[in-house]
Amino acid sequence: MINLYTWATPNGRKVAIMLEELGVPYAVHPVNLRKNEQFSAEFLAISPNNKIPAIVDDEAEGGPLTIFESGAILTYLAEKSGQFLAVSGHERYKALEWLHWQIGGLGPMFGQLSYFAIRAEQKCPEAIERFKQESERLLGVLERRLTATPYLAGEHYSIADMAAYPWTVSATSFMKDVLGEYLSTTPAIHDWLKRIAARPGVQRGMAVPNI
Amino acid sequence: MINLYTWATPNGRKVAIMLEELGVPYAVHPVNLRKNEQFSAEFLAISPNNKIPAIVDDEAEGGPLTIFESGAILTYLAEKSGQFLAVSGHERYKALEWLHWQIGGLGPMFGQLSYFAIRAEQKCPEAIERFKQESERLLGVLERRLTATPYLAGEHYSIADMAAYPWTVSATSFMKDVLGEYLSTTPAIHDWLKRIAARPGVQRGMAVPNI
Repeated sequence: MINLYTWATPNGRKVAIMLEELGVPYAVHPVNLRKNEQFSAEFLAISPNNKIPAIVDDEAEGGPLTIFESGAILTYLAEKSGQFLAVSGHERYKALEWLHWQIGGLGPMFGQLSYFAIRAEQKCPEAIERFKQESERLLGVLERRLTATPYLAGEHYSIADMAAYPWTVSATSFMKDVLGEYLSTTPAIHDWLKRIAARPGVQRGMAVPNI
Repeated sequence: MINLYTWATPNGRKVAIMLEELGVPYAVHPVNLRKNEQFSAEFLAISPNNKIPAIVDDEAEGGPLTIFESGAILTYLAEKSGQFLAVSGHERYKALEWLHWQIGGLGPMFGQLSYFAIRAEQKCPEAIERFKQESERLLGVLERRLTATPYLAGEHYSIADMAAYPWTVSATSFMKDVLGEYLSTTPAIHDWLKRIAARPGVQRGMAVPNI
């Protein structure tokens, strides 16, 4: 059984989507970020970076395996199942480059934008402007890619789409006031969002954890 | 032949280190960030995110293959060569989780700290404090890991170390005024830095591009 430690955030939902797409049994362990449960000693033993998501696969080859970092978890689940990531060849590395692009770019920059523009008590205009510009630039990169190919890796839906989807949804929802205007210029992103949102596994994954 | 598009930055050097460690022939194509060469149409065709590093492997299986994002390039070169990343099992996913931790955490947070604390003309104290705290927290995570194991993935040097090394060096060099005090409390990081710095491939990779 796979144990998923997660909360209602884009990073947590990436892994829930993958598990739902695979249709494998898993147990959800909510880690309530509002109560700072990610800093408990118990959770630190699983996730040395004190962040969700993390998994413990009780039935991994070689004994129970703990993994943190959403990109590593997605890669593990794809390699274990043989699904949503080509085993070799060009499409494998197209998926991995867009996965890393989300992990190193879209995720952190959207995260900082939401902090400075929405959550921060003291507003710093230079920081808001910096992260807004960078987020829009990244959405422009995403729009160009999705104008050329239906999915991030190319012809097939992959873990790269699962990684980028929940963050892009956040740009249309709780960051709508900041990024909504730019998103009115990105038809390929909207078509892709609709294609992904229509998948039953995605719908179920986006509702995890049930809180 | 592998073509490496790069510049003298931590992200560029990760890939140069890997190529030097592998001892494979490669051609260096400097992309001068000071002249904004990363925005040229020619480079955009290779790197849709307008960032270095990127590679073109003329002899990839299935025809020439272009990859951007340092984490994806390191994974590709490791899988192609069968070196510096276990093919399966626990150590593979320990390497991938620490690789993703660097890509999504250490890299972006150090990058933002260096911008707000050093390069920004208008200083925003809240942003400096935020990224300093987060960078120190990440160095604390690194210190704990390296107290437990000699390398990030465990017993063996891997692409995770190659990814984290150039950024950690930057904390001891051009970000020394900001992070130096915290780094005086991290002996395991210093031991690891020395072990990595002693590798001839690392020394050669850190000198690429020769500008």
